[in-house]
Amino acid sequence: MIEKITAPTLVVNQNKCRSNIRYMLRKTVKSNSRLRPHFKTHQSEVVGRWFREEGVQGITVSSVSMAWQFAHDGWKDILIAFPVNLREIDEINHLASRVKLGITLSSPGVAPLLEAVIKKPVDLYLKIDVGSHRTGFDPSHTDWIRETLDAIKPNTNISFKGFMAHAGHSYQAKDPGEIRKIFSEGIQILKLLEAIFSPDFPDLIVSWGDTPTCSLVDNFKGIHEIRAGNFVYYDLMQWQQGACRLDDIAMTMAAPVVALHPDRREVVVYGGAVHLSKESMLCPEGKPHYGMMVFYQPDGSWVFPEQQAWVRRVSQEHGIIGVTEAQMEKIKPGDLLGIVPVHACLTADLVRELFIL
Amino acid sequence: MIEKITAPTLVVNQNKCRSNIRYMLRKTVKSNSRLRPHFKTHQSEVVGRWFREEGVQGITVSSVSMAWQFAHDGWKDILIAFPVNLREIDEINHLASRVKLGITLSSPGVAPLLEAVIKKPVDLYLKIDVGSHRTGFDPSHTDWIRETLDAIKPNTNISFKGFMAHAGHSYQAKDPGEIRKIFSEGIQILKLLEAIFSPDFPDLIVSWGDTPTCSLVDNFKGIHEIRAGNFVYYDLMQWQQGACRLDDIAMTMAAPVVALHPDRREVVVYGGAVHLSKESMLCPEGKPHYGMMVFYQPDGSWVFPEQQAWVRRVSQEHGIIGVTEAQMEKIKPGDLLGIVPVHACLTADLVRELFIL
Repeated sequence: MIEKITAPTLVVNQNKCRSNIRYMLRKTVKSNSRLRPHFKTHQSEVVGRWFREEGVQGITVSSVSMAWQFAHDGWKDILIAFPVNLREIDEINHLASRVKLGITLSSPGVAPLLEAVIKKPVDLYLKIDVGSHRTGFDPSHTDWIRETLDAIKPNTNISFKGFMAHAGHSYQAKDPGEIRKIFSEGIQILKLLEAIFSPDFPDLIVSWGDTPTCSLVDNFKGIHEIRAGNFVYYDLMQWQQGACRLDDIAMTMAAPVVALHPDRREVVVYGGAVHLSKESMLCPEGKPHYGMMVFYQPDGSWVFPEQQAWVRRVSQEHGIIGVTEAQMEKIKPGDLLGIVPVHACLTADLVRELFIL
Repeated sequence: MIEKITAPTLVVNQNKCRSNIRYMLRKTVKSNSRLRPHFKTHQSEVVGRWFREEGVQGITVSSVSMAWQFAHDGWKDILIAFPVNLREIDEINHLASRVKLGITLSSPGVAPLLEAVIKKPVDLYLKIDVGSHRTGFDPSHTDWIRETLDAIKPNTNISFKGFMAHAGHSYQAKDPGEIRKIFSEGIQILKLLEAIFSPDFPDLIVSWGDTPTCSLVDNFKGIHEIRAGNFVYYDLMQWQQGACRLDDIAMTMAAPVVALHPDRREVVVYGGAVHLSKESMLCPEGKPHYGMMVFYQPDGSWVFPEQQAWVRRVSQEHGIIGVTEAQMEKIKPGDLLGIVPVHACLTADLVRELFIL
């Protein structure tokens, strides 16, 4: 029972999660694509198994340690979608002897060093910068891409798998139209590279991932692999972008009420920056906030109050929620309030305790 | 050796840490005050023992679980400086049977509920809002304070210990002058309450903590207890406020270089929002950043580059550092770069792996 929760805990609505998983899976299957979901969002073996029950076989993670976590839980096909960390090469070789392992290169100059140290079979993805400018090969420099592929050639343990992109800039897009545009422009870049390099690499694939575009686009035609991850929970950022409805959000954080300040209509909860993270966004009135308040029902499901209420400030363990007078009257010290996070990935990384409905 | 580090790790300069500890201890002793350092910054048993070696006996923590962590490491006098969480009352009673435990009330209305459930001896601190408006009793409502003290009276396990304040607004202060003003105004409030309530509670104490004021003020006269914590490491926020020198900062985060983009003079490291946190501040050019780059020497000590370089962006695991052309030439994939964090408390909460020099 939810009543047993004493400290900040993620409350996961299993039905909503499974429904989000099926939604993304249906779209990928219909498009003849394959879902390789990103597990960095939930980082949970239990949630991972819900994907497996739906037939998912390959997954994406963002660190070597996360790859080990899921290898230990029986996953056999794991892509580390993060630029290869040469300092962890022993762990990577070790992992590659246990599972089908994918690794990523995202900039020129690393390939010769990688070529010299890989001792077990790995699939190599080249990350292409389709506009986020975080990292990735500049697609206009096909010469740099070719040099990289030439540099790894002597090492027969390294198989070039294909081109991947993460359109991280879709998270800053203002509306669904802009998100769809980011998708079509990015895919165009990948398909162009595919056309250029497929004569030499006839089996190369194109891999795409980020929840805003994958939620808003219905057809993944021509994309072999979809790597979105956030959609398993969704969050307020996705909702504000139009990538999901509030009702699709499958996770809230339960936070005990520890102080009430009716004079300024503020409630203090145990649940702060070390739980929600310091990721903020703007509420409809234009003020920054760190999450939206919901009320729990005894079975752990949550309801949205008629008037939206926001986490106005966070410090290390404190969250300060601004409420209406009527809401204040309903809330007592020791109650459990729910908070819909701004960015589910960061909150789930911080709070590892799950309460599953 | 620092060369063994493969993933994001805190590198702690023990000498600097111990020197910061001694500095704060000297000031409290000279003022006839007592240091009850806040351990939420480091959350490390090892660093905690450095305090114990200097004679510190009582500590402050911000959660019941942290209290247990340090109780298990032999600490016998622990204050949880966070509004009491009634949902954890069983754990609190259990802890109170093992150590001398302090708990905190920070708003009216909670005392009657607390009175009914405390079954072991605890010291009760009342948190006073001296201007941060996070939580705490409004000092102008002495009637609410008196009601609270009356409400707990029937429970003889609860001893009223005194008034505490955390001037969290000092973190937003622009200069040392403003920080000193926050200190003197806050202390004036606590001393006034002391004068009002000491006829009934002759042994009541006044407890104060926050690193900016405690670093900049030399005399803690009249304050019985100092609860600062951040000073053990210090960080860029403290440096920018004038509370420490860059050389006093005792912790950096080691981050492996995973990609280089010389065309836009950016280095990508394994070390992002789940390591540094999303706490940002402005660099001298007015742009937001998430940390300052330093170079490690083979023994793990760090040097500041002639031209300052900043972590411009972070995503979950990626950190993007903007560097000069000359710096770019020195940096190779697989190198370890150091990052001085914006807010040491959040970074240390996220990265629990310590490498101690």
